[in-house]
Amino acid sequence: MVLDRLKQVTYHVGSASPTPHPFDPLSAAEIDLAVSLIRAKINYERLRFNAVSLWEPRKAEMTAWLADPENAPRPHRAADVVAIAPGGKVYDGVVDLTDKKVICWEHTPGVQPLITMEDLNAVEALARNDPRIIEQCEIIGIPKEDMDKVYCDPWTIGYDERFGSNVRLQQALMYYRPNVDDCQYTYPLDFCPIFNPETKEFIHIDVPPVRRPLSRAPPNNYDVKSIENQYGYRDTVKPIHITQPEGVSFKINGRFIDWQNWNIHVGFNYREGIVLNNITFNDKGTVRPVFYRLSLAEMVVPYGNPEHPHQRKHAFDLGEYGGGYMSNSLSLGCDCKGAIHYMDADFVNAAGAATTIKNAICIHEEDAGILFKHTDFRDDSVIVTRGHKLVISHIFTAANYEYCIYWIFHQDGTLQLDIKLTGILNTYAMNPDEDTHGWGTEVYPGVNAHNHQHLFCLRVDANVDGPNNTVFQVDAARGAGEVGSAENKYGNAFYAKKTKYTTPLEAMADYDGATSRTWEIANTNKLNPHSKKPVSYKLVSREVPTLLPKEGGLTWNRAGFARHAVHVTKYADDQLYPAGRHVPQTSGTPAPSAGLPTWIAEATSSSSSSDASNIDNTDIVLWHTFGITHFPSPEDFPIMPAEPMTLLLRPRNFFDRNPVLDVRPSWARSPSQVAKGEGEGCCAKKGDGVSKYV
Amino acid sequence: MVLDRLKQVTYHVGSASPTPHPFDPLSAAEIDLAVSLIRAKINYERLRFNAVSLWEPRKAEMTAWLADPENAPRPHRAADVVAIAPGGKVYDGVVDLTDKKVICWEHTPGVQPLITMEDLNAVEALARNDPRIIEQCEIIGIPKEDMDKVYCDPWTIGYDERFGSNVRLQQALMYYRPNVDDCQYTYPLDFCPIFNPETKEFIHIDVPPVRRPLSRAPPNNYDVKSIENQYGYRDTVKPIHITQPEGVSFKINGRFIDWQNWNIHVGFNYREGIVLNNITFNDKGTVRPVFYRLSLAEMVVPYGNPEHPHQRKHAFDLGEYGGGYMSNSLSLGCDCKGAIHYMDADFVNAAGAATTIKNAICIHEEDAGILFKHTDFRDDSVIVTRGHKLVISHIFTAANYEYCIYWIFHQDGTLQLDIKLTGILNTYAMNPDEDTHGWGTEVYPGVNAHNHQHLFCLRVDANVDGPNNTVFQVDAARGAGEVGSAENKYGNAFYAKKTKYTTPLEAMADYDGATSRTWEIANTNKLNPHSKKPVSYKLVSREVPTLLPKEGGLTWNRAGFARHAVHVTKYADDQLYPAGRHVPQTSGTPAPSAGLPTWIAEATSSSSSSDASNIDNTDIVLWHTFGITHFPSPEDFPIMPAEPMTLLLRPRNFFDRNPVLDVRPSWARSPSQVAKGEGEGCCAKKGDGVSKYV
Repeated sequence: MVLDRLKQVTYHVGSASPTPHPFDPLSAAEIDLAVSLIRAKINYERLRFNAVSLWEPRKAEMTAWLADPENAPRPHRAADVVAIAPGGKVYDGVVDLTDKKVICWEHTPGVQPLITMEDLNAVEALARNDPRIIEQCEIIGIPKEDMDKVYCDPWTIGYDERFGSNVRLQQALMYYRPNVDDCQYTYPLDFCPIFNPETKEFIHIDVPPVRRPLSRAPPNNYDVKSIENQYGYRDTVKPIHITQPEGVSFKINGRFIDWQNWNIHVGFNYREGIVLNNITFNDKGTVRPVFYRLSLAEMVVPYGNPEHPHQRKHAFDLGEYGGGYMSNSLSLGCDCKGAIHYMDADFVNAAGAATTIKNAICIHEEDAGILFKHTDFRDDSVIVTRGHKLVISHIFTAANYEYCIYWIFHQDGTLQLDIKLTGILNTYAMNPDEDTHGWGTEVYPGVNAHNHQHLFCLRVDANVDGPNNTVFQVDAARGAGEVGSAENKYGNAFYAKKTKYTTPLEAMADYDGATSRTWEIANTNKLNPHSKKPVSYKLVSREVPTLLPKEGGLTWNRAGFARHAVHVTKYADDQLYPAGRHVPQTSGTPAPSAGLPTWIAEATSSSSSSDASNIDNTDIVLWHTFGITHFPSPEDFPIMPAEPMTLLLRPRNFFDRNPVLDVRPSWARSPSQVAKGEGEGCCAKKGDGVSKYV
Repeated sequence: MVLDRLKQVTYHVGSASPTPHPFDPLSAAEIDLAVSLIRAKINYERLRFNAVSLWEPRKAEMTAWLADPENAPRPHRAADVVAIAPGGKVYDGVVDLTDKKVICWEHTPGVQPLITMEDLNAVEALARNDPRIIEQCEIIGIPKEDMDKVYCDPWTIGYDERFGSNVRLQQALMYYRPNVDDCQYTYPLDFCPIFNPETKEFIHIDVPPVRRPLSRAPPNNYDVKSIENQYGYRDTVKPIHITQPEGVSFKINGRFIDWQNWNIHVGFNYREGIVLNNITFNDKGTVRPVFYRLSLAEMVVPYGNPEHPHQRKHAFDLGEYGGGYMSNSLSLGCDCKGAIHYMDADFVNAAGAATTIKNAICIHEEDAGILFKHTDFRDDSVIVTRGHKLVISHIFTAANYEYCIYWIFHQDGTLQLDIKLTGILNTYAMNPDEDTHGWGTEVYPGVNAHNHQHLFCLRVDANVDGPNNTVFQVDAARGAGEVGSAENKYGNAFYAKKTKYTTPLEAMADYDGATSRTWEIANTNKLNPHSKKPVSYKLVSREVPTLLPKEGGLTWNRAGFARHAVHVTKYADDQLYPAGRHVPQTSGTPAPSAGLPTWIAEATSSSSSSDASNIDNTDIVLWHTFGITHFPSPEDFPIMPAEPMTLLLRPRNFFDRNPVLDVRPSWARSPSQVAKGEGEGCCAKKGDGVSKYV
């Protein structure tokens, strides 16, 4: 594997340019440079670029430079390149942009890199002209002159054992639109062609044994003209204006954001979308590291209908398509409100030219309601303080679905990840009298929306007061001693049962809602001065469904990361993607599957010479799989009201007191003020929205 | 029991006044009227009123009147009265305010009504002058001349088997303030006096075997002067203004709120605080009932330290103190932002006079972010629609803690209950070298904050398209058939396993995080036209800890509702409070405990002549216990950054399509517009915060 070799890459001090920062995504100019350096060396005429992205600085080198930028060597800029040569040969490479040389360039057999937007967009026009697809359309009631009304959402094939991994393939989920503005998901077609992008041919069509003619139900549309014609828009919503007349509370320096003691580097790549690096919190003058790198590293969306070929519907939206590549360009007042700062995202296209998605990242503040409050019942002396939050967001469209990702920083040191799911259900055709067998819901006549899960993998490269961290499983547990015993007479004893994970095998842990299970990422070398407990950040995550596809089945094999709620590994520079570097058309077999299962097997094998089997008090990465199970219903159609999800990373024993006491209260009146009759009335009487304390 | 008799009360048509509405809380005038009617009949000189609150209309009568207000008899206004006569005799009564007569008035032996704010406020001054308390203070280092620096938070005693239920008692949790503005929870005292409010005497002091002298640590304060002196306020927070120049989107008619197809009656009582009645959703012209009544009906906060007398710390904040009585008076810009509508709350005081808490309820709208969005990857045609939400909130202070309760209505038919916990940890003294044994955390030198749970009981009186509803437990489950079998070849089959509850015993159910367990409140008489599934509302609640106090122990005995995540009972007019009508000093023994355990035992006993054992397709109430387990840490002190909690009631198979398609999008561009080059640019370019679609 090329990865083994890439691990050996080291950089030397060069004539480092002051910008960009080593964490920054590659700029358009850097992408162009990387491509030109490869072209100069390789000279493939028809080389199609799949990805040119930041080859992230090796951590040892990076932390040395961060600690001493004056004297330590500045990490070189480098590009991580994936390209496909004629014949479907996949190449992985690294280009040193500082030294302007190709470090490595190697053919990787038997893998398929992700599907780009260009790959997706190439299929539909060809499908409309394919005689066998035209024939299938005619069988279900679409005359050939209506082929311009046939649409397809091309997915990677996932894995199909009939075709294996060597030929790059896409499956075309087929739809129909009576008119161009109609929602195509109301008219799913019952067959599924398989496309080879290399030859631009459809190599096979999966046709179900029982045919489902095109639905004749009227359109179920959400577009403006349809709503206006049907019942018009409600006129009862009065506007809410959100303004920041004095500007935002954050400062941006390059891609570093400084806000309310937090400092965060905002990166972005084609795959994970937002990557947050070097997250620190200024604790009364001491800049304390919290996370080295945070991202959504992978996800899988298994569908629950066992009928062939629906088992192929289990998209790895990040590893197979790229959350960055699928990013929406965001717009003020539409996606976010208030004073917005945007960042663009630069990618490569197949031809090797840099392309830009404008406004891919949105950075803004929101009011966060009450930050803390207390009233003394004796005298109504009171303090009430409102909070703000900082939201760093992006939205990506994975064919039918939309994922809205919000990284939210709170003033009190809490980091929240919110995800909103919206967009449109993936749908399949059904006959009027057909039984869904419980695998889906008829959300509209002729429309079967299959059960599915959205399972996300949060990658937490922890840095809680330094790189050496330990993960503890924390369960709320009853104390020893039965009711009536001397030690627990009234039966009320309970405590936080902490289980230390010392090896990656121990750390393969499931969720337990009954014990309110959480996980603490602790630095056992540093104790809180008051509690004498290790400083830590606690993962509080309550939407943690079990992976429903069965052990040994296709999705289970491919999505090793989703088998457990938590995995913990020792940090390694090349372990970014828990389902592997190249995800499409992996079978997950033989064991161990690519990504996490392989790394853990390597770390714990008896022949391993590494110290990767130890995750106690060392540089560790916590992988957390969370999400929801979605049983569709008609109110989700034809477009789904956003379904929210959330998790928290909360400081525990990290600060020695509430870290937001110095946020000015909206209103405060002390007992002595009450006694003296001072501070009567309330800020409300002053007539301004954000009043000062009295 | 008086309750049995009260069940028999029926009303006759009287000269009904057009106002107030039968659901409305009693007005101050009605409270005064009720008191005067009782005084005229009873003539106790020293009668102390504990509660005078709406005796809610019997449901059968009320629903008949709601259905046909022209012809059905209008339910009488009536007062539910609790009072304490000299000698501690507790009286329960009902007064018909329409007919102006006392319907019943009865001594209820062996019970103790809740502790009012007047009860709470009476103790501290007496404690400062009690010789035995002065003595205890001197023992731990407080000279008697400093007794004005001694404070106490008087709690109900909960239950103490040494003193039983017949004498009304309070336990005084003791604190010290070096200066009047200092946070007293930094200086907890180690002993606990027991107070008899009838005799105004301290009858006992619980003194621990190992003494803990008064802490000499410096104050840990959050008040403005202390923060200014210590490090000053940060000047980095820029204001966020939220304005509604065209006013709010809701209309208020009496206490009915009409907002975005929702219609809600907002009630309030001394105990539950906000009570929402007759919640309906206007579905394209059809007004569909959803809930008859929603409230937080009870809660319990068990603490986890088994050392005596901490087992008594398990406050039932609603049943023992009253969430309404403890309400904060809210203020614009401090507690909420934007255009706020307030409602006051009227109560009775001990002397029998009506009193008012101004601004007890806050009603306002907020921006709710993206309501739905979809982009077509082919052509970037897009629709993005933002949502609003309606928030009906109150905040109550339970001694040290603050509970912020937000009932949130979403445009898509979702109802959300958010709770924020803030305020101050309950603390106990600890010596410098003392071991907490894991039952608490030293959050500051000398301050032991004990582990605790906050368990709330949501009462859902369902009315999903009518009163006859059924509850199904829904678990995400794997399909039958092993991997490789014909029926489940790839192992990906999964479905929603639904278990119908037909009896209250079957419905005593726990949470299961692994199956993403939810509960559907369904109307099996009405099927969704598309899915053919019953219309329903689904309870999605993920913060559902197990009750940690052990079975048969004190808290377990008293808090029957908290033994399971869900109970379902057949509706009965007098079954409002799941830990019983009078909660203080109940022991919970012998079984069945008051409230839910008793009702379920009665419903399922073989001698029961009622049909209360059937909960299938009848008028049912779902009781849901949820909350958090809190292991304190120093960042929670001296005042706790708000900790959030949430649950959802979501329409499932209730609507035949997305019910918010007629909310005007912020931005929309159809494929045909894209093709014609229409609608270029975005709303952002128009320069207004809330732009119209193009």
